[in-house]
Amino acid sequence: MPKKRGIVAGVDLGGTSIKAIVADRNYKILATGKKRTDAGVKAKALIHEIARVVEQAAADAGVKVKSLAAVSIGAPGAIDVKRGVVTEAPNLGWRNVPLGEGLRSRLGVPVVVDNDVNVGVMGEHALGAGARVAQLVGIFVGTGIGGGIICNGELYEGGHGWAGELGHTVLLADGPVCSCGRRGCAEALASRTAMERDVRDAVKSGRKSAVFDIMDERKKDRMTSSIIQVALAKEDPVMKEVMKRAQYYLGILVANVVNAFDPERVIVGGGIAERLGEDFVKPIRETAQEYFLHAKAVKGVKILPGKLGDDAGALGAVVLARKRLGL
Amino acid sequence: MPKKRGIVAGVDLGGTSIKAIVADRNYKILATGKKRTDAGVKAKALIHEIARVVEQAAADAGVKVKSLAAVSIGAPGAIDVKRGVVTEAPNLGWRNVPLGEGLRSRLGVPVVVDNDVNVGVMGEHALGAGARVAQLVGIFVGTGIGGGIICNGELYEGGHGWAGELGHTVLLADGPVCSCGRRGCAEALASRTAMERDVRDAVKSGRKSAVFDIMDERKKDRMTSSIIQVALAKEDPVMKEVMKRAQYYLGILVANVVNAFDPERVIVGGGIAERLGEDFVKPIRETAQEYFLHAKAVKGVKILPGKLGDDAGALGAVVLARKRLGL
Repeated sequence: MPKKRGIVAGVDLGGTSIKAIVADRNYKILATGKKRTDAGVKAKALIHEIARVVEQAAADAGVKVKSLAAVSIGAPGAIDVKRGVVTEAPNLGWRNVPLGEGLRSRLGVPVVVDNDVNVGVMGEHALGAGARVAQLVGIFVGTGIGGGIICNGELYEGGHGWAGELGHTVLLADGPVCSCGRRGCAEALASRTAMERDVRDAVKSGRKSAVFDIMDERKKDRMTSSIIQVALAKEDPVMKEVMKRAQYYLGILVANVVNAFDPERVIVGGGIAERLGEDFVKPIRETAQEYFLHAKAVKGVKILPGKLGDDAGALGAVVLARKRLGL
Repeated sequence: MPKKRGIVAGVDLGGTSIKAIVADRNYKILATGKKRTDAGVKAKALIHEIARVVEQAAADAGVKVKSLAAVSIGAPGAIDVKRGVVTEAPNLGWRNVPLGEGLRSRLGVPVVVDNDVNVGVMGEHALGAGARVAQLVGIFVGTGIGGGIICNGELYEGGHGWAGELGHTVLLADGPVCSCGRRGCAEALASRTAMERDVRDAVKSGRKSAVFDIMDERKKDRMTSSIIQVALAKEDPVMKEVMKRAQYYLGILVANVVNAFDPERVIVGGGIAERLGEDFVKPIRETAQEYFLHAKAVKGVKILPGKLGDDAGALGAVVLARKRLGL
């Protein structure tokens, strides 16, 4: 059954949801599945949930789980890629969880594990805005800021599997405190979390903003990408200002990456990029170009929003499995 | 004559001097040559000078220039590696100078050209503190700050040959003006030029420092590495403070590089590292380790001073030629 052996399930494991895609050899999506997860659920239970989402998606695709060529998963944290172990995932509260082995023993097929942003970048590289160029950097802006590097056409894992943590490059020494406990990281300046902090601080200090009314209306307790989109559509002055500042820092981050790594393309992905597209990326590009060392980089390096949206991670996981297992 | 075909001349072309090393197959140095250059000398005349330094070093080594397997040269600027053209070298006042062809037509042997810091990093990687690890980053601190990246054991040139400009990563957004015209780059915070500016500013604002007396005594109009060394040995308070600040920013630069690129080693080279060694690198390492995202990086990533000193560039050029020409 050579045809079925080419079918792979890709999973994007986020802090709040599991997304699975079952795709054939040509990356045609046969079925998808999604499930919200509870914060604080134990690792064993969450692995069980992941297995169930994969089983359901496989059933929807008319494929037996056992006949999948692989299940491939991107998880939010530091991964021991060879052993398939999530060594540290603060968002999940995980430490040294053998995710690969847990899924393999439940599903009976080969399992591949990597970092969620790495697989998202692989997805954009192979199937999205990355156009399979040899040198590419992806920057995903969401609750945090993650990054991934494609070097000579392959995912670059680094010396210990930790490469690509572009959200924790310091852009403003001694700047605001970051989730990692240090100061002035890109994530502390330009993530959705940083933007929400800045909006709250502005309102606390007396500025007027509709952001919290919009959040109340939509019953959100966090400033999600959709809230940002609505607030910008209403021309909320605080939201516009906070977004502009975040884009400025993201532009500097992109320039740092370009000056250090000289990629052919930089893909800006994640929830905000998915919703705002070019409106989000254009000011980032403009600042980045001002900070390029080599004038020719303005023409030579394309800075683009991601194309795959929410599918980048799960599709990228499928790409990863094909590469890693030679499928 | 298989033995002679293995002999290569490596050249380090700096803003103020030309250094050549003639080395055999085992990187044994057979002869060296050095010549100071005048600022503002025309490209054609400087290429002539380089050829003469190579000819003299070859003669000292008892080798005919024509029997050299290659002449390999690191030049300070952006290089079109394939064509051997220095596309832009502000320190030399060069633009689109066909350095490779100029030397080849004079010397009659194959010529290889790359960026001076790239070849310095190759030298440290193959023959110095780099221990030939697969993933390595070199940061050279001098008049400016340069960088080079070894990826999977090979010099990483990037998508357009511009990779490794780590001196122009912004560490302090909106910080001091850099030689590149932007603000807050590592080079504007921690190069020898930045340190000299900070010492001058401190003295202008009334602080007492022996730095300028030491410069007068030694008839230097610039705060060279040797001046810095003497001022620190005298416990000059301004020099100590300025050095400490530079080391702090260099520590953040190293951490940024480690978080993004996850190398096995980071080599800190250049004139100051050569003179001060571990005294220069220790505080850099301490700050970097505080800024590592992954706790395991403290053990996993070695941060070391370069071992080759002033020979790194010329020896690295020899390494480059062997790699590039398969010698």
